[in-house]
Amino acid sequence: MSSKRVTIIGSGNWGSAIARIVGSTVRIHNTEFNETVKMWVFEEVVGGRKLSEIINEQHENVKYLPGKKLPVNVLAVTDVVEAAKDADILIFVVPHQHVHRLCAQLKGNIKPCAIAISLIKGLATCHDGSVGLKLISEEIKQSLGIETAVLMGANLANEVAEDRFCEATIGTKNPSRGNELKKLFHTDNFRINVVEDAETVELCGALKNIVACGAGFSAGLGYGDNTKAAVIRLGLMEMIRFIERFYPGTKVKTFFESCGVADLITTCSGGRNRKVCEEFVKGSKPLAEVEKELLNGQSAQGPLTAKEVFELLQAQNLTDDFTFFAAVHKVCNGETPADRFLDLIR
Amino acid sequence: MSSKRVTIIGSGNWGSAIARIVGSTVRIHNTEFNETVKMWVFEEVVGGRKLSEIINEQHENVKYLPGKKLPVNVLAVTDVVEAAKDADILIFVVPHQHVHRLCAQLKGNIKPCAIAISLIKGLATCHDGSVGLKLISEEIKQSLGIETAVLMGANLANEVAEDRFCEATIGTKNPSRGNELKKLFHTDNFRINVVEDAETVELCGALKNIVACGAGFSAGLGYGDNTKAAVIRLGLMEMIRFIERFYPGTKVKTFFESCGVADLITTCSGGRNRKVCEEFVKGSKPLAEVEKELLNGQSAQGPLTAKEVFELLQAQNLTDDFTFFAAVHKVCNGETPADRFLDLIR
Repeated sequence: MSSKRVTIIGSGNWGSAIARIVGSTVRIHNTEFNETVKMWVFEEVVGGRKLSEIINEQHENVKYLPGKKLPVNVLAVTDVVEAAKDADILIFVVPHQHVHRLCAQLKGNIKPCAIAISLIKGLATCHDGSVGLKLISEEIKQSLGIETAVLMGANLANEVAEDRFCEATIGTKNPSRGNELKKLFHTDNFRINVVEDAETVELCGALKNIVACGAGFSAGLGYGDNTKAAVIRLGLMEMIRFIERFYPGTKVKTFFESCGVADLITTCSGGRNRKVCEEFVKGSKPLAEVEKELLNGQSAQGPLTAKEVFELLQAQNLTDDFTFFAAVHKVCNGETPADRFLDLIR
Repeated sequence: MSSKRVTIIGSGNWGSAIARIVGSTVRIHNTEFNETVKMWVFEEVVGGRKLSEIINEQHENVKYLPGKKLPVNVLAVTDVVEAAKDADILIFVVPHQHVHRLCAQLKGNIKPCAIAISLIKGLATCHDGSVGLKLISEEIKQSLGIETAVLMGANLANEVAEDRFCEATIGTKNPSRGNELKKLFHTDNFRINVVEDAETVELCGALKNIVACGAGFSAGLGYGDNTKAAVIRLGLMEMIRFIERFYPGTKVKTFFESCGVADLITTCSGGRNRKVCEEFVKGSKPLAEVEKELLNGQSAQGPLTAKEVFELLQAQNLTDDFTFFAAVHKVCNGETPADRFLDLIR
């Protein structure tokens, strides 16, 4: 059996942090994986130079993960088809709004037996004009016709890049595939559990960003730890009910994995959704402006996911059953003043 | 049916905060509850005056909850038998090491049909020299021969005293009793859920303090949010396994109540166990000294609970199955350097 080739689709903050891990694990398991890891880079000019060239010469993503070296076997490639065509394993780690376009480019241009793993925390948009819930993994699977696992967890990218101890969860219906993927990500300081309840793993990753917006409102309004904990708990209960409603068969134990409570705690403490929403309710600027000021070109998925979930709930007459998600959306879009948030969810 | 008399046994920070709530709810539900709420106060002299007199004259516990008024219908009583003898409902809210002695004083001196509710987060000590797990509610029940419920939740006392929105969980095997007790505690800003899985509710309240010690070590050692979330998650998993081991039949959903994840989040963010353990690992002083300096006479239950749990696990040859709890105990008593904590739990 020849060794498998791995390609990372994406090179933002999280993509670069994960490239540090994968670039190292393929060398440890070098009978199973090819040592060269291609990384698709959306070309940008940084300080007069092409980002891809900087990465391949300096082995550092100076824009999205400055100060951290990438392994020399991680190779930046600017053409996504070129990056992916020989890959056996495709790691998707791009903002969720780009998945559709990238998959359209990749369709028919990858190995038929390739598999994918999505690290993207968000929901897919239905491009046929319908309103429905679609997972990013489903979009990749349907678009490319390949098996798609997910990896989610309490993983602020900068801390992962500093090799701080943390955990993550791989979700896949295929346990032997799960163990193969575990080898690609598991290290002493980035510890992987594999579970079969893949939809719950993925939905936790998307929905927790909405809860983090609520935690941000709570902090911005000056509430203390009790209230923050109550907000997070009410959000978690709504995540559970939402997943039970749309993916019956979810296992409640999955919420105790890193993708569940742990990611929720991290995201509600220090994540970008929390920060943006906290600043938003403190000031008088629209959310989009606060996001632009704070995130250096990255995006906060929470408000967008809240909007998508709200539209889905509205189409199914369910907004009254999911008051937390609805309230986050209405505060984000300016329809409801933030100081009414607690009244809406209690 | 005559209205029921309520007595609060205890008047520390948490006891005084709860007196503000109960003093108000008995007036709202004044057909069911007698309006006078007796509160047993351990007499101390504060600024040359008796604390009980200050409370009854100024309606403020100037030592343990300064700046917050108590309702005028809360009456400080310094003799515990006098405070409790006519009560139909006894609310226990004292440091757990005092329960045994207080129950010995109350035995035979209370109404036989009285019921108790314990707000005490800790474990009881076996006073017959044996090593075993005993809940505070079991100690009260056995000692006084009365039905005993529990109330636990994400409730930092000072925030409750400021009427910040939060939640709590009442655990009782008796649902109709649960609803009666709910009336005594539930307000717009202090929201009660009642569950029947009472042992889990109570054990969450005790064990989360051990986890908070771990979160404190993690913070004191300078680790970030990912690591803190992983530590909290690993601690939560150990709480669940511990409760499943010693109280088979626990319901995993109970961990999603305020007494579970919410209390854990609060306690690991801002609670006294977290603070004491963080300072402890940053400095070179023994834990008892740090506790004394930081807590103004209050105690941190976490290290004590860790010790009790460790002795129980040791007696049953189970320390290797509960590495988190064992590691917290060993760091607290100085047997293991704090910087080895992560190695022990990973």
